[in-house]
Amino acid sequence: MTIYEIITKKKHNVELSTEEINWVVAGYVSGSIPDYQMSALLMAICFCSLSDRETTDLTMAMARSGDMIKPETGGFNVDKHSTGGVGDKTTLIVAPIVAACGVCVPKMSGRGLGHTGGTIDKLESIPGFNTEIPYEQFVANVKKAGLAVAGQTGSLVPADKKIYALRNATATVDSIPLICSSIMSKKLATGADGIVLDVKVGDGAFMKTYDDAEKLAEAMVRVGKLAGRKCVAVITDMEKPLGRAVGNSLEVIEAIEALKGKAPSDLMEVSLTLAAEMLFVAGKGTAEECKKMAEEAVSNGKALDKLREMIELQGGNSDVINDYSLFAQPKFSKKVFAPEDGFISGISCEKTGLISLRLGAGRQTKESVIDFTAGIVFEKTVGDKVVKGEKLATLYTSTDCDINAISNEFADIFSYSVKQNPCPEKIVKKIIKGY
Amino acid sequence: MTIYEIITKKKHNVELSTEEINWVVAGYVSGSIPDYQMSALLMAICFCSLSDRETTDLTMAMARSGDMIKPETGGFNVDKHSTGGVGDKTTLIVAPIVAACGVCVPKMSGRGLGHTGGTIDKLESIPGFNTEIPYEQFVANVKKAGLAVAGQTGSLVPADKKIYALRNATATVDSIPLICSSIMSKKLATGADGIVLDVKVGDGAFMKTYDDAEKLAEAMVRVGKLAGRKCVAVITDMEKPLGRAVGNSLEVIEAIEALKGKAPSDLMEVSLTLAAEMLFVAGKGTAEECKKMAEEAVSNGKALDKLREMIELQGGNSDVINDYSLFAQPKFSKKVFAPEDGFISGISCEKTGLISLRLGAGRQTKESVIDFTAGIVFEKTVGDKVVKGEKLATLYTSTDCDINAISNEFADIFSYSVKQNPCPEKIVKKIIKGY
Repeated sequence: MTIYEIITKKKHNVELSTEEINWVVAGYVSGSIPDYQMSALLMAICFCSLSDRETTDLTMAMARSGDMIKPETGGFNVDKHSTGGVGDKTTLIVAPIVAACGVCVPKMSGRGLGHTGGTIDKLESIPGFNTEIPYEQFVANVKKAGLAVAGQTGSLVPADKKIYALRNATATVDSIPLICSSIMSKKLATGADGIVLDVKVGDGAFMKTYDDAEKLAEAMVRVGKLAGRKCVAVITDMEKPLGRAVGNSLEVIEAIEALKGKAPSDLMEVSLTLAAEMLFVAGKGTAEECKKMAEEAVSNGKALDKLREMIELQGGNSDVINDYSLFAQPKFSKKVFAPEDGFISGISCEKTGLISLRLGAGRQTKESVIDFTAGIVFEKTVGDKVVKGEKLATLYTSTDCDINAISNEFADIFSYSVKQNPCPEKIVKKIIKGY
Repeated sequence: MTIYEIITKKKHNVELSTEEINWVVAGYVSGSIPDYQMSALLMAICFCSLSDRETTDLTMAMARSGDMIKPETGGFNVDKHSTGGVGDKTTLIVAPIVAACGVCVPKMSGRGLGHTGGTIDKLESIPGFNTEIPYEQFVANVKKAGLAVAGQTGSLVPADKKIYALRNATATVDSIPLICSSIMSKKLATGADGIVLDVKVGDGAFMKTYDDAEKLAEAMVRVGKLAGRKCVAVITDMEKPLGRAVGNSLEVIEAIEALKGKAPSDLMEVSLTLAAEMLFVAGKGTAEECKKMAEEAVSNGKALDKLREMIELQGGNSDVINDYSLFAQPKFSKKVFAPEDGFISGISCEKTGLISLRLGAGRQTKESVIDFTAGIVFEKTVGDKVVKGEKLATLYTSTDCDINAISNEFADIFSYSVKQNPCPEKIVKKIIKGY
């Protein structure tokens, strides 16, 4: 077996064997296959794709490239993954709801790069909150409270780290089987029994078209099933930011509001759908019963209690739940007003993310330090009627970025129409169950 | 301009600008673009191809990546290139014929890797022959005798060396625009006024199908024309070894025989066609006149005189021309006999090459030392009637390879039929003129 033969096979659209895929992943991680051969193979995969069997084999080989953990929580462990979007704080809402319903959520999460921060970054905006807890404490916390959110520990999926960095440098990111294997290898390595995938679609998402999002969702569900996990994918809208807040502490506050039952309807709908699916894969009841259970965990305050418990177990100041002034406060703010009368017909999600990044809410490079106070709070959203001069949003930052210049550019991310769109985008577009 | 954007463009089948192509070649040669990004781009080119304009730009950028030489021979310089085949000793025949007709042939040639040796290796089988002469002597020899064959000097086309090595490691060899740019960049950098390309097609050639050979021939002729050179491509058969001899000194002997008018008809036809086209691009007359001129240079012995002159000018013992025993003699030989009665319907060219390599006639790796005595002489060829026990060929070697085992395998490379094929393959299939 040589890498040359394997590249040639894939280039001619011939299916690779399990043995060949295992050999490539092991060889690339060990360094015996150099980057320049791996990038040629990845580009050939971009053109010729991978079969379900190949994708599953790749995912499993990647998952096995490092530690395989299985948090012994004593219960059914459910994991949730979002393909990433602007204003996506659902983990902070969903994990407490699911834990409140008696299902374990041992959530290992990443930091963000570009756009806004990841879940780990958001949680670190809570004073004292420690995301780098030892693995034993992570498991103990889940056993006690039903949930814990921490950064990845140990050597999880080194193959994905190395392949992802190479894909990022060689324009081989947008291949559905490669995206699928990257996501699913991490889910399989962290030992979830059930997995709910939130596949975002739209301008602010990785998948720009519904067709691509559906293909990725179906691929992940199939791989999850072949790997013996209970798996559901939910395709949700990312044509506009989710909820009203973008930025780290701003999103934590919005998540707390959601657990108090006061979140915008789009965020609430996505969060309750994901929570219900997580309960469903955990076998807590019918779809109907699970939805009701999730709603009740919010209305009876038990989900908020779970969030409080998690914050305390991870060293954070849970008083922030009732006193948002305990978060670091932004030094600068700038209101943005409607330039004309009309209905808001669009808010560019991608531009929202980039503006949030420039305000300091995300990382431009791996070394960047996040400004937890930075971000955007929208007062108006798509479909709302506005009159000229009415407040659209407020920008926040504590960095010395030029907030005035940024706010001028920000005004351009809105589009307007004279009539209201009678058919607004559905927020939850499809649910794909893998079992 | 970033390499990421350029890879993305090509991956989406968008034409690259001249500026982008120049930037990529310069960046790759300087090392600012790493191998792993270049290999991703090369694989994308394999799938999406390059337009004629892009191919010409790539060829020119590669040619300009190192020294651009222009041998000041005082005459019209004609170069000849073969895409490579088994038993291809035409340069040794063609260059003396053309020089004998008054056209300069300053030929820079490469060494072989795999199969049999290159022209340089073949010439080095002549005792004393020096292929590493200084550039000034190379030019002086061409001025004096009309021809010289030497290894490449100086830093010619470093981009091709680097890109070719990468293609060879990443299964990105079989792309027509990449093959075209590799060949033509070297021809353009060595300053030929006219270029005749021998594009081999068949089992023993790089191009396995006539369609691919024609595409490559047309691409090279177009690039040559766009680069302002007189260019002709001749598509010739490589379904069986050319001539009867394979191996370094064995091929030199067969070339000498050809210049004595005693070569097999296939070798003679290819050589005279190429020589005539070289004279034609040099403006020596009509196609008919040039063919006649080439034939006369053989029949009147002037071409053989030119070979003698070249051997002497490059320090070789020209007595080999009349006394083949002056070549190093093989230590071992083994005759191979026909296993059945019939007509020979095929001789696997690729397998011939591999067996020749195992006998020691080629290089397994760059560091291998060639056994100049090694090789094969066929007594019978495709179309010949044979009876069981009749001699088919003799294998030669001076290495300690297992010649008996090799000869057993060799017997399998022949195929037989009960009737003679009424339509044998044409040796010269097409001539494509670029002006």
